[in-house]
Amino acid sequence: MINWRGLLLAGLLAQGVVADEGMWLLNQPPKEKLQRDYNFDLKPEWLDHLMKSSVRFNNGGSGAFVSQDGLVVTNHHIGSDSLQKLSKPGRDLVQQGFVARSLKDEAPCPDLELNVLQSIEDITAQVEASVKAGSTGEQAANARRSFISGLEKSESEKSGLRCDVVTLYLGGAYHLYRYKKYTDVRLVMAPEQGAAFFGGDADNFEYPRYDFDVCLFRVYENGKPLNGNPYLKWNAQGVKPGDLVFVSGHPGRTNRLETLARLEHLRDQTLPFRLAALRSQEMALRLYSQRGPEQRRQAQAELYGVANARKAYSGQHFGLLDQDLMGTKRQREQAHRQAVAQDGRWSQESGPAWDNIVKAQTQLGGYEKEYYLFEQHLALQGTLFEFARHLARWSQEKDKANGDRLREYRDSNLDSLWQEVLSSADIYPDLETAELTASLGFAAETLGATHPTVQQLLQGKSPEARAHELVSGSSLGRVAARKRYRDLSSAELKAQGDPLIDLALAIDEASRKLRRRYELEVMEPELSAYASIARSQFALQGKDLAPDATFTLRLSYGKVGGYREGGRTLPFATTLGEAFACARQHQNEEPFRLPKRWWDGQKRLNLNMAYDFVSTADTIGGNSGSPVVNRQGEVVGVNFDRNRHGLSRNFLYTDLQARHISVHSPVVLELLEKLYGCPRVVAELRSGKRP
Amino acid sequence: MINWRGLLLAGLLAQGVVADEGMWLLNQPPKEKLQRDYNFDLKPEWLDHLMKSSVRFNNGGSGAFVSQDGLVVTNHHIGSDSLQKLSKPGRDLVQQGFVARSLKDEAPCPDLELNVLQSIEDITAQVEASVKAGSTGEQAANARRSFISGLEKSESEKSGLRCDVVTLYLGGAYHLYRYKKYTDVRLVMAPEQGAAFFGGDADNFEYPRYDFDVCLFRVYENGKPLNGNPYLKWNAQGVKPGDLVFVSGHPGRTNRLETLARLEHLRDQTLPFRLAALRSQEMALRLYSQRGPEQRRQAQAELYGVANARKAYSGQHFGLLDQDLMGTKRQREQAHRQAVAQDGRWSQESGPAWDNIVKAQTQLGGYEKEYYLFEQHLALQGTLFEFARHLARWSQEKDKANGDRLREYRDSNLDSLWQEVLSSADIYPDLETAELTASLGFAAETLGATHPTVQQLLQGKSPEARAHELVSGSSLGRVAARKRYRDLSSAELKAQGDPLIDLALAIDEASRKLRRRYELEVMEPELSAYASIARSQFALQGKDLAPDATFTLRLSYGKVGGYREGGRTLPFATTLGEAFACARQHQNEEPFRLPKRWWDGQKRLNLNMAYDFVSTADTIGGNSGSPVVNRQGEVVGVNFDRNRHGLSRNFLYTDLQARHISVHSPVVLELLEKLYGCPRVVAELRSGKRP
Repeated sequence: MINWRGLLLAGLLAQGVVADEGMWLLNQPPKEKLQRDYNFDLKPEWLDHLMKSSVRFNNGGSGAFVSQDGLVVTNHHIGSDSLQKLSKPGRDLVQQGFVARSLKDEAPCPDLELNVLQSIEDITAQVEASVKAGSTGEQAANARRSFISGLEKSESEKSGLRCDVVTLYLGGAYHLYRYKKYTDVRLVMAPEQGAAFFGGDADNFEYPRYDFDVCLFRVYENGKPLNGNPYLKWNAQGVKPGDLVFVSGHPGRTNRLETLARLEHLRDQTLPFRLAALRSQEMALRLYSQRGPEQRRQAQAELYGVANARKAYSGQHFGLLDQDLMGTKRQREQAHRQAVAQDGRWSQESGPAWDNIVKAQTQLGGYEKEYYLFEQHLALQGTLFEFARHLARWSQEKDKANGDRLREYRDSNLDSLWQEVLSSADIYPDLETAELTASLGFAAETLGATHPTVQQLLQGKSPEARAHELVSGSSLGRVAARKRYRDLSSAELKAQGDPLIDLALAIDEASRKLRRRYELEVMEPELSAYASIARSQFALQGKDLAPDATFTLRLSYGKVGGYREGGRTLPFATTLGEAFACARQHQNEEPFRLPKRWWDGQKRLNLNMAYDFVSTADTIGGNSGSPVVNRQGEVVGVNFDRNRHGLSRNFLYTDLQARHISVHSPVVLELLEKLYGCPRVVAELRSGKRP
Repeated sequence: MINWRGLLLAGLLAQGVVADEGMWLLNQPPKEKLQRDYNFDLKPEWLDHLMKSSVRFNNGGSGAFVSQDGLVVTNHHIGSDSLQKLSKPGRDLVQQGFVARSLKDEAPCPDLELNVLQSIEDITAQVEASVKAGSTGEQAANARRSFISGLEKSESEKSGLRCDVVTLYLGGAYHLYRYKKYTDVRLVMAPEQGAAFFGGDADNFEYPRYDFDVCLFRVYENGKPLNGNPYLKWNAQGVKPGDLVFVSGHPGRTNRLETLARLEHLRDQTLPFRLAALRSQEMALRLYSQRGPEQRRQAQAELYGVANARKAYSGQHFGLLDQDLMGTKRQREQAHRQAVAQDGRWSQESGPAWDNIVKAQTQLGGYEKEYYLFEQHLALQGTLFEFARHLARWSQEKDKANGDRLREYRDSNLDSLWQEVLSSADIYPDLETAELTASLGFAAETLGATHPTVQQLLQGKSPEARAHELVSGSSLGRVAARKRYRDLSSAELKAQGDPLIDLALAIDEASRKLRRRYELEVMEPELSAYASIARSQFALQGKDLAPDATFTLRLSYGKVGGYREGGRTLPFATTLGEAFACARQHQNEEPFRLPKRWWDGQKRLNLNMAYDFVSTADTIGGNSGSPVVNRQGEVVGVNFDRNRHGLSRNFLYTDLQARHISVHSPVVLELLEKLYGCPRVVAELRSGKRP
């Protein structure tokens, strides 16, 4: 008879042991593994300092304090949303970059929120206790939701911090995260996009790379720079091959603990649909950008995001088509299921979990596209509809008890909500119309013209005509109008006759129904099933297994080093000189065009300096802007990308060729000093305080 | 009781009468309408001369002889396939243009075939007589196919001409077309793409426009320029508003006679799927192009075609979502059906036709995507798989009787087939790999990874790995290998172990089955149904109704004139001066960048000269490059595009805003003379013969 337990442990251990796998919780760090594999003694105070110096960018990235005066480093592509919003016609900060020569030149960002984690508390037992034995799925979901929203509110009131309950191990654990929240954030320095995103879409997710993907902000409180905050020291030497490095950031989403049935659904349903939607949106943005430099300026930040997601999803799809990857997943799952089946303790509890997940996928298949189109508004792209949706829903939600509201309208989330809806950032009606046109068309492509909600959207008009009517007839482009709408009752709001609000209200019932079905038929059964799978896994393996990413702070680690590809060895780092060579090879044409400043200053630079380097540490989208630190906890790099082999790390860690890519710390000093004329920033990075 | 007959006639008359509608057969010209609406007396010899001077570009466009020495004018974007094939790394004729200073500089095109129509014969009665009464659908299809292929072969042998039987009115009539065929075609002159396609994708299908979309070729026979061929005189004055103009060209495909059920299927199934495929392909080509100038050069002609189709299909989709358009179609169809139902003569014959078309759509829905993916090889994009498919099929088809072969392998088509497969044009393996990667991925997105044919395609590998294996392992990039494969038996071919041939053979049975189902369950029932609908239409209305476009020669006519849009009046023509103004407004940046030659020569030009003009004549894709002629049959323009309002003309003619766009004849002389240094060509255009 086959020793399934042996296989299982081999499989799980493989999963746990494989080199440097893991995006570790800061309250469950891989202390033993670091000691064993790297002879590194992970001290609690080292970790606590790293935690309090790490920053979450709420628009989807990471960063770190790098001075005691609130200076924060992240990526240009994480900062680009703010760069976009600070730009005006003829003054394009994304393209041209920005340098604040003095403190008073630092530019306030319209709606940027940063979070800094202060503590984590395991509240799994309390959450589980809130669900009465014998509850139905719906009752369990309601009980959990009510408990969690109550706790978030009371903890937030108690501590004055932002408090979020995070679901880990897909339902296997719940932790309470307490954050300091900062909303007065100012732009200090950004390079030109030509330097930050050299190689563009063509080189995105590729290596070797030559990108100066760095952006600096400063956090203010009460109108003054933060002072005395924990921060990471900037290391002026950087790394060499073989060095141990750590990445402290906020990986967004991985799917490593998901079952085969779920991954197959992702491969054959979800990803193909999301890719189709992204391609339609990207095409519309590209076409709009081609109309002229001003249109390009307006659309660029969003276009970057869409193209980046399209490339990432495509890489994930390719990964899931690879039978080596799926075969490994299958083998591990079979081993685990056999072990569970043969173990009386677990067969009853975890046994049905896999089938329940199959069932959830089948349910989801029936309305997944509608769910994404209407509830996630893929059918209604653009900022204006987001406003319309929030205002329409707020008019209904505000009369409900806190715990009964949709998550985004609970008291603990309202600050962030109004920060977004009442942002002073410019709205571009033509861009809104172009995006709405494409997404309305995409909805009709997906569901056909006779679908009742599609008919509500289009009203018998072509997508172009309808989008034009919706945007030109709406007042939502003006902050004052949004502020006024916020305070209206549901009946008053209806009486305004704003076509976008009317549309949001018209499809709201159908849309909420989709969300409800999704939560009850998919999320809730998956939560229960994964929780029980996780429990059997913990029991059989211990907790030496990191949970899937949840856009919360994690610690990864790895070794600096190149790899073999297509018969050649790629080095651990590129050099500044190679960046110029690459530009020359492409006749300095887009997207391989270095800014004039670079050519002018070329001779002043140390061209042999290592520019972008790679390591085996385990990262994913959301880690953009993460500080990369050495054993001393000093910044040696700023993570900005993975290579394409890293795209399938959503499902399975590998270090054969997969690498994350970082801007090297010394090169930041070199470039800020010699090309960008930022002596005060260089001094601040070197000393850790404002000069 | 409603007078349905009255409504029907009103409806049909409306369809027939509406202004300048109609892509007319040259053997059924709209003589009376022209007399009535324009007081134009259409003489047979005028028409015959126009026919014999008009040229079909077999890669999908139109053109005309413009000198007695074989000089042919068409569009740059029709010539671009040849420009691409004549280019080499560092010598990019698409971008840089081309001028043959003397006859000996004229550059032979690798695989271009031109056809010139000599005569048309109505053979409807003979085709119908070939089908025995009481035949099943399959028997009828076989009988027709056998009769048609026999006739094409015998007529071709008798006349020495290319003979094609064309199905008109979707099965309502069959005509025999006899063409002179030319395969020694040489490039004479092409402007830079920056001038020809100024405004790029952003301005494609828009107006006002500023494009010099013109390209000149010369036809040779026995190594010498053609001599004494019929040709159209070049008019140096051009047009003014209100002028009657004719367009003589090869519109590719319209759907005006198709039923509502068919159009709904197109709107909700076919177009969405084709759009998804095009977007995936376009994204791959754009990404490839961004890798560098040489990659851009390799991909540009194809990228243009894909982007153009994507925009055209999207416009069609939008048109079909417009209830004004669909309402008109519905009203006409209901009127016709009511009239048929109340008329004993027709109710029995035509009555079931509409339901049969519904049924055909339902059948098609079951395997349409597979049909396009595998039989039309959307799953296997690139030139190499086309070769593989042809060679694999030829090895099987060559042993069959001529009438039993698939259409493209019949004797009458073999010259064209080998012209294509044995072309000396360069093959770019990296481009092939990129296209194959994207299309394999798209197949998996569409049908899921577990679909049996998808599994045959991917062999458990990621699309990228599999595409690389297929391309790098194949010999099909070399002409000599293709020539050798052509002469092998089926068994010998299999023994070669060429992975692309092996794949073509592996999926051939499934693919042929799809084609067979499509022909029997969709094409054949549709042919019968539309034929019977057409007969009742002819009986009730006469033949004053042009058939849908079939990429065969048609005559359209219309009036030169601007239109109202967005509150302003657009003029009948743009000027050369406005082209410079538009470039300046866009900082001369792509895609609004005029070539250096233009800026250098700006002062020499008559900037007030009308550049591109619009008329109401009825055109569609395939009309690109069509000569636009005046009452005297002289060239006053070269048609190159429609505006976006013209995109829904596939389904319904309108002249409210829809216009086709042409390069104005005088401006061609102006630019060739003053910018392009082509005195010999200018002299030839002015005199009609080589100087």
